[in-house]
Amino acid sequence: MESNVAEVASLEKVDAGRSGPADSHTRKLVSYIVDTRYEAIDGNALQAALRPIVDTIGVILAGLGSDAGAGMIAYARQQSPVGAGSGAAGAWVPIPGVAVSAEVAACVNGTLAHSLDYDDTVLGAGHPSGVVLPALLGALDPALPARGGVPLSGRELLEAYAIGFDVHVKMARALGLKHYKHGWHTTSTAGAFAATAALAHARRLPHQTVAVALGMTASMISGIQRNFGTCTKPLHSGLAARAGVMACDLAAVGFSATDDVFDGKRSVLEMYGLGEADPHQFELLGAPHALIDPGVALKKYSACFTTHRAIEAAMRLCVEHDIRPADVESVRCFTPIGALMYLVKRAPRTALEGKFSVEYLIACAIVDRRRAVAAHRGHRGRALPAGRPRGTAQQPCYRRLHRGAHQDARRRRVRQARRCARGRGRASDGLGQHRREIRRLRTLRRHPARQGASSLHGPARSRQGARRARGIAQPDVVEAGRS
Amino acid sequence: MESNVAEVASLEKVDAGRSGPADSHTRKLVSYIVDTRYEAIDGNALQAALRPIVDTIGVILAGLGSDAGAGMIAYARQQSPVGAGSGAAGAWVPIPGVAVSAEVAACVNGTLAHSLDYDDTVLGAGHPSGVVLPALLGALDPALPARGGVPLSGRELLEAYAIGFDVHVKMARALGLKHYKHGWHTTSTAGAFAATAALAHARRLPHQTVAVALGMTASMISGIQRNFGTCTKPLHSGLAARAGVMACDLAAVGFSATDDVFDGKRSVLEMYGLGEADPHQFELLGAPHALIDPGVALKKYSACFTTHRAIEAAMRLCVEHDIRPADVESVRCFTPIGALMYLVKRAPRTALEGKFSVEYLIACAIVDRRRAVAAHRGHRGRALPAGRPRGTAQQPCYRRLHRGAHQDARRRRVRQARRCARGRGRASDGLGQHRREIRRLRTLRRHPARQGASSLHGPARSRQGARRARGIAQPDVVEAGRS
Repeated sequence: MESNVAEVASLEKVDAGRSGPADSHTRKLVSYIVDTRYEAIDGNALQAALRPIVDTIGVILAGLGSDAGAGMIAYARQQSPVGAGSGAAGAWVPIPGVAVSAEVAACVNGTLAHSLDYDDTVLGAGHPSGVVLPALLGALDPALPARGGVPLSGRELLEAYAIGFDVHVKMARALGLKHYKHGWHTTSTAGAFAATAALAHARRLPHQTVAVALGMTASMISGIQRNFGTCTKPLHSGLAARAGVMACDLAAVGFSATDDVFDGKRSVLEMYGLGEADPHQFELLGAPHALIDPGVALKKYSACFTTHRAIEAAMRLCVEHDIRPADVESVRCFTPIGALMYLVKRAPRTALEGKFSVEYLIACAIVDRRRAVAAHRGHRGRALPAGRPRGTAQQPCYRRLHRGAHQDARRRRVRQARRCARGRGRASDGLGQHRREIRRLRTLRRHPARQGASSLHGPARSRQGARRARGIAQPDVVEAGRS
Repeated sequence: MESNVAEVASLEKVDAGRSGPADSHTRKLVSYIVDTRYEAIDGNALQAALRPIVDTIGVILAGLGSDAGAGMIAYARQQSPVGAGSGAAGAWVPIPGVAVSAEVAACVNGTLAHSLDYDDTVLGAGHPSGVVLPALLGALDPALPARGGVPLSGRELLEAYAIGFDVHVKMARALGLKHYKHGWHTTSTAGAFAATAALAHARRLPHQTVAVALGMTASMISGIQRNFGTCTKPLHSGLAARAGVMACDLAAVGFSATDDVFDGKRSVLEMYGLGEADPHQFELLGAPHALIDPGVALKKYSACFTTHRAIEAAMRLCVEHDIRPADVESVRCFTPIGALMYLVKRAPRTALEGKFSVEYLIACAIVDRRRAVAAHRGHRGRALPAGRPRGTAQQPCYRRLHRGAHQDARRRRVRQARRCARGRGRASDGLGQHRREIRRLRTLRRHPARQGASSLHGPARSRQGARRARGIAQPDVVEAGRS
């Protein structure tokens, strides 16, 4: 009976929440999307937007050689109409001979952008540019009738991109950490709203239409982490970009949806934030702009961002001390505990899964520094039956190394968990254990040799390191093998 | 620290759950989808499938006149390539002059099917046919290259439809009631898996491909109840049908996804069931078949199914006792408390919102029996500024009636909630209040005059009543007005 009573009570409140009070979260967001002008955006943010835009075009092109890229080429051909004359015009995709709609183009380009896991990132907020830029590119192509041959100016693109980027980061934070821990992929969920925001701004949609488009977008958000390490992870970017295009298109022709989806009972924040949503983030839109604080990180390796320090440390140690694979008995790697949340593949079966295994990537770095990284850039998801990365098949030491690193990390974490559990048993508030853990980490920091990755590529240098310029090369063409 | 420890522990288990044990839920589902043959399906289920299939074609055509239908016509034209010659072939949609892909066709037909909220239903499981049939129609059109001119046989269609229907109902139950109460629209979430199941079977995809397609589908499920009463509710059907088509297409070309998404940590059941998922439902697939138990209900009115008894009761009372609007002071309506979960629009602003307001629909039935129902069938979302349904503008008594019914229902529910709350205060386990409530309902059942709807159209007769044959007429063309 209790649940029924609660339900009646909650129904009573549903309508009350719909009236749209002055401090409506939806209204704040819509106002930011519609009313922000180029002049009002921080000049440093606009300056900072240039590199990720160029970088995203680069990773879209590079993605053509990946497994997900092969899937998207087939998909774009499927979506291109049969029997269409050569005059058929479509939105831009880097695939010759196809004529696809803006939606399909957004999906294809978004998936390509994320297919190598090489697109830019904001730690804790996902990969904004791989969603926002494809949504804009697809829907604002001058070849489309909506544009009537008018190209998007650089200024318009910058303005819309900067707004979409900021909305992505603030939305990810508004959804909260529990959203991610529950299993959703923020790039996809927050990204869909960012795509809608960027495109709605670029198309100069009015306030009410944007509110409706956001309401519609809320019925299209999805993407789960269980698909990490498969082609469906990059697809999340494409689906988010497509949702933005579809929502703007439909809202523009009067298709209705709720116009206050971030407010009231069963709001999208309540549903997907699971009690830890933080709508206060909407007040921080544009101030500071997410392109400045926290800023965007361009990846150095095409693997999960949280593995970068470990890869870098392993490579430098090997170079500086001339360590060869045969010299290494086992590896111990300390990472911030938060990084483990992203490293969901302990024993990768394919190179694609290997992007989320720090054990695998450290082994790659030690065994074959140059080739391992190159192989990852151009991988096509080949299976790793013997646990070997591409290009290391000849090196018998790899298997031992990789297994050693893996087992050591597993043992360490189990020990750590047990220690913490015992600590909790003694100090019921858990704070004692927490303080001991902090002291332990501080001690480690004073002994660089004991820290592995952190000692060589510490927090203070990480952003600078990650932002280092890198060229985007077309991936090596290697034989395809499905996993 | 506690949360971090829990996280480490949960990460330890992620891989363990991936090994695919013999009692894997995913394996059971995949096996049902792939291995079920026409001969193995209950003959009564196949017989029962005929009417909902014909009915769904009817509501797709009728939906063209609705608000969502107008949106879908514009959408289909947008998705049709510019400059395509007259020879361009596309999947079937009831819109002349467009050539769209199977995905777009599934989306358009699915949305049309649900656009009047007139498609069939299984109470508690949503609207299976409006998702399953459009997915099959779009992707199996003989005009598409994949079919090579080969039409789908009636037998093949029946087989795939029956499997999709059953998967929809069992999936909705597996996701559980908390899934719905949290705010998701089961038609869309369970429906996407049903669409994938039906199409995967029809295309004879192998086991592993189907497992991957289901994993991909899990990254496409969405649809929230906050969009009830808007065009986006029917869009949920279309999005679910499209997800099925896309997942099957991509899985068939080797696009990878997790192959055990219903098992292990952070499975889709865990994520979307919120602790109340019931994977045991997968053992009931096909036995009994959902087309037989609980069976499918064809709607008599194009409004939420839970309002049908109330509408019927009001109309019959008025006819049998020759009650005119001016004779009615106020209305008291008792419904099963579970029905309130679906009736989310207390004070509708448009006819589309009116489909989810029992107060509004009873007032419609009293004020203008014939025209009110006809108006609902052909409504185009016209705003109701004065709270009047279409065709009753001349009748000043409507406003009083409608307000009366609304206020009375609100007062009753508040009183009921307070009573229950007091009851809980006295009996801490809540059972005392529960028993009193059951006694009260039994007493009411013995006094038909006090029950309103239930007395005239009781549970025993409801399915029979709802299944009554009805003709599907093309809706009246009325002037459009956006709300």
